[in-house]
Amino acid sequence: MTTLSSLQQQLIKNKLDAYIITRNNMFLGQDVLPQENKVLELSGFSGSAGNLIVFRDKSFLLVDGRYDIQARAQTQGQNIEVVCTRDSIATWLQDNIKDACKIAYDPWCHSIAEVDYWKRALDNFEFVEDKNALLGSRISKSSPEIFELKEEFAGISSDEKISYLIEFCQENRLDGYLLCECDCVSWLLNLRSDLIPYTPVLRAYALVLADGSTSLFLDDFSKLEAELDTLKGKRIGAAFNRCPRKLYSLMKERKIWVVNLNNPVADWKSTKNEVEIAGFRAAHLRDGVALCQFLYWLDNNWSSTDELGVAAKLHEIRSKGDNYYSESFATIAACGKNGAIVHYQPTQASNQNLSPDTVLLLDSGAQYFDGTTDVTRTIALGNPSSEIIKSYTQVLKSHIAVATSKFPPLTPGLALDTIARAALWRFGKDYAHGTGHGVGHFLAVHEGPQSLSLKSLAPLKKDMITSIEPGFYQEGQYGIRLENLALIKEVATDFISPMLGFEPLTLVPFDKRLIDKSLLSAEEINWLNDYHQTVYDKISPYLAAAEIAWLKSATAKI
Amino acid sequence: MTTLSSLQQQLIKNKLDAYIITRNNMFLGQDVLPQENKVLELSGFSGSAGNLIVFRDKSFLLVDGRYDIQARAQTQGQNIEVVCTRDSIATWLQDNIKDACKIAYDPWCHSIAEVDYWKRALDNFEFVEDKNALLGSRISKSSPEIFELKEEFAGISSDEKISYLIEFCQENRLDGYLLCECDCVSWLLNLRSDLIPYTPVLRAYALVLADGSTSLFLDDFSKLEAELDTLKGKRIGAAFNRCPRKLYSLMKERKIWVVNLNNPVADWKSTKNEVEIAGFRAAHLRDGVALCQFLYWLDNNWSSTDELGVAAKLHEIRSKGDNYYSESFATIAACGKNGAIVHYQPTQASNQNLSPDTVLLLDSGAQYFDGTTDVTRTIALGNPSSEIIKSYTQVLKSHIAVATSKFPPLTPGLALDTIARAALWRFGKDYAHGTGHGVGHFLAVHEGPQSLSLKSLAPLKKDMITSIEPGFYQEGQYGIRLENLALIKEVATDFISPMLGFEPLTLVPFDKRLIDKSLLSAEEINWLNDYHQTVYDKISPYLAAAEIAWLKSATAKI
Repeated sequence: MTTLSSLQQQLIKNKLDAYIITRNNMFLGQDVLPQENKVLELSGFSGSAGNLIVFRDKSFLLVDGRYDIQARAQTQGQNIEVVCTRDSIATWLQDNIKDACKIAYDPWCHSIAEVDYWKRALDNFEFVEDKNALLGSRISKSSPEIFELKEEFAGISSDEKISYLIEFCQENRLDGYLLCECDCVSWLLNLRSDLIPYTPVLRAYALVLADGSTSLFLDDFSKLEAELDTLKGKRIGAAFNRCPRKLYSLMKERKIWVVNLNNPVADWKSTKNEVEIAGFRAAHLRDGVALCQFLYWLDNNWSSTDELGVAAKLHEIRSKGDNYYSESFATIAACGKNGAIVHYQPTQASNQNLSPDTVLLLDSGAQYFDGTTDVTRTIALGNPSSEIIKSYTQVLKSHIAVATSKFPPLTPGLALDTIARAALWRFGKDYAHGTGHGVGHFLAVHEGPQSLSLKSLAPLKKDMITSIEPGFYQEGQYGIRLENLALIKEVATDFISPMLGFEPLTLVPFDKRLIDKSLLSAEEINWLNDYHQTVYDKISPYLAAAEIAWLKSATAKI
Repeated sequence: MTTLSSLQQQLIKNKLDAYIITRNNMFLGQDVLPQENKVLELSGFSGSAGNLIVFRDKSFLLVDGRYDIQARAQTQGQNIEVVCTRDSIATWLQDNIKDACKIAYDPWCHSIAEVDYWKRALDNFEFVEDKNALLGSRISKSSPEIFELKEEFAGISSDEKISYLIEFCQENRLDGYLLCECDCVSWLLNLRSDLIPYTPVLRAYALVLADGSTSLFLDDFSKLEAELDTLKGKRIGAAFNRCPRKLYSLMKERKIWVVNLNNPVADWKSTKNEVEIAGFRAAHLRDGVALCQFLYWLDNNWSSTDELGVAAKLHEIRSKGDNYYSESFATIAACGKNGAIVHYQPTQASNQNLSPDTVLLLDSGAQYFDGTTDVTRTIALGNPSSEIIKSYTQVLKSHIAVATSKFPPLTPGLALDTIARAALWRFGKDYAHGTGHGVGHFLAVHEGPQSLSLKSLAPLKKDMITSIEPGFYQEGQYGIRLENLALIKEVATDFISPMLGFEPLTLVPFDKRLIDKSLLSAEEINWLNDYHQTVYDKISPYLAAAEIAWLKSATAKI
């Protein structure tokens, strides 16, 4: 195990000024096992995003607004300065480090594009591959259970998906394509594994040659190198923004011609097929039934439970559903001021009894073989203040602004992010996280390329699924977030046709006790009433009598 | 004069497959004199944006949505395919030209960054400098009248502005900065010239050394080369996205260390100083008086005039104002279906009498020594249809959505573009141009970095001025655009403070005959009534009695 001070000694010994450390393993993705997370190991910071830059005598931890408070708490007492920024590592270095520096990085953990960019944009610095693996291996050896996702759930056979990639190779005159994104590999081959909690992704690279022969590389890199040995002079495609720099070096050493091409699988995967969409609908029906049963229980029991109790009860109900596999992320059950910590998860240490006259922020989801769910509701406990009710209603307006929006095909996600945010900006409010993310089909609950966020230029298309989850957080007091998953579908209009719009997949009522009707427009009230009617019609057939009565009231027109 | 076929013969002779031609001259800006415009010379297309790619046997003219119709008309009968696209030259080549190609370009007319990008992203092609100047010189020799903009208008002396740049050089350890953007050079030195119609910019490069010595290069490039000869080994900053590739080559040949740094002058220039803001207000008051006088005249005379008559009358009234210098662009006066051609300008050939029961789209502006104006109104002629009234009201909603928006400092212009567009998307409508542009102070009526447009990530800041000009165009029928210039100012809120918002500078009523009040919200009606009250209060003191009566009615509450 490496410590900050031992790394700093190594910097001196190796004549390095600094070392850039990300949470990445060699799959450059979000799903890093705790034992692989070098940012955690060196700094104690456990958040899902953050970069550490270690200098000989001081370190900087760069985090975004979601993690500012948590990062300060977890790094307290160390010589680490927490920097709350949306800047990339490169931009931050450029703006803040004035002296010329020799900076090391692990070539397995940064993309070709990222390293290229550093070298091009920051001519002040020298960036060098850490050839001594100062931080140790960046992947934990493991033998996950690998299983096939049946075609009745996947909708398209692996052979057919591979045929798309063969066609792509032909169109681009490639001899093969090296796919480095695990969720794309999993989708392409209809394979899953149990390695990563919450995310049934198979962690592997795949090399698909133009003749269709496909090799999978889990953690046996001598096999990968041997396969690359056979490809001298060939033209192999890879997405430079997702392929580790190390693989580029390995290919270049073998005189392979590496061509930068966006990974087409990510696009195919992001627009769901008919079977996947039907599965998402079925999964959301089951998930909605579980949530409604839970909310009925909560209304009658909140005063005698705590945050962990909420998470456990919800898990107990949800896990009885057909095709249930696991939760899709650790449940966020945050009462009162804990709700203002955007990515709060209750632990034994932080756990609180639910207290009256505030709100519970509950963000949870499940992996079903036929689809993945992710839903946030904010729930009244006792009699929350009129300020909370006002904020809730404003966040609901923001949610409805996106839910009712129409937009041309290929509009960037950033535009929808703005539509959500502009509704809150009018009241001087905002939130330090994205408005929505793509959702995998029995894969990662966050997937690209689509994203409703401040910087996303990725185009939105028919049959994509995204979350819609604006929020508002009053530090030290309360947090509100309202999240549905929604399917992007075509909408006819008298002028531009088709336009796109959203159809909610999530089927859970919004808490009417927190809505100030006088702040809603007629159009917003109509949307809410229609949505609640749909929830009632679809969910009530699966509930017991007392639950039906509760749902009837919870979904009655305002 | 080069023709398409002579250039194609040269391609064959020089063993080139293609030649990339933009409207650019060596200042890479918008203001290209007709005799410098090689796209016009070769293709006949006269629009303000468009790129021509000439192959040996065929040519492609890439234009955006504004110019689709015009480009097809102007290139008819030639072997030129008009492509309507928002793609860059590079993206279009990548997606459409599958064969490896050797492509020539004029290094004076493309930025360092653009050529770098081509070479990096398009490994299929070979890009070569045209050393033979196949297209001839890209700048017309001229002896413009150069004059100083007095400090009473400019607000800050040239010496003080240069001192900012000296400080910038010190901060970035530069021996000097090469400023290639003419409008920045003009602003920095408080100089203007009469070379370019409508835009009193001085066309020159400026080299500012860290000791403050400043050299200006108009069209004497031997002087520039001699000056560069003295800078061997020095560290000179330049904005690679605005500096011609040729200058980079000249500096590199002299072993000058060229550092890519955003041009800071563009930022200083874009946030107006107090004197400039006061000047803009004064200019808009005068311009508003002229417009109201004109609109009064139009209401009484429209049936006996034509589009050119409108432009001439408006010019006659406006040019009597204090500090008037010229129009800021050629007036767009477009009646009925001509209004659907976004950048229509009436000519002797296209000129039409104003006809009843439609609308006149009137987009015009002026250069005053103390500020620049740009205003579009759409005006009822007779009794326009209810469809036109509905569209007008929807465009007005879009305008008001931006005018009343609040947003955090540094929000990208793209977000405001979305706010405008989303209001129209709801009705299935959109427009094929940006929502707003920055405006120079007695300089180019379009200036950056800020832009309310689909791709602009440039941050919006206090004291910037932009237009707000959503529209709707029904081809073959009518066009609507509603444009004010507005100042970005700080707005206090109970949560995030300060936020930013807009204050209208333009003082001209919107045509109430085209507004369907039932489609407006209470907030929208309030904004309109308040705006009209302001227009009346400020403008009426300068009008004659009959005009005052007209304005009173035009601005009465709805």
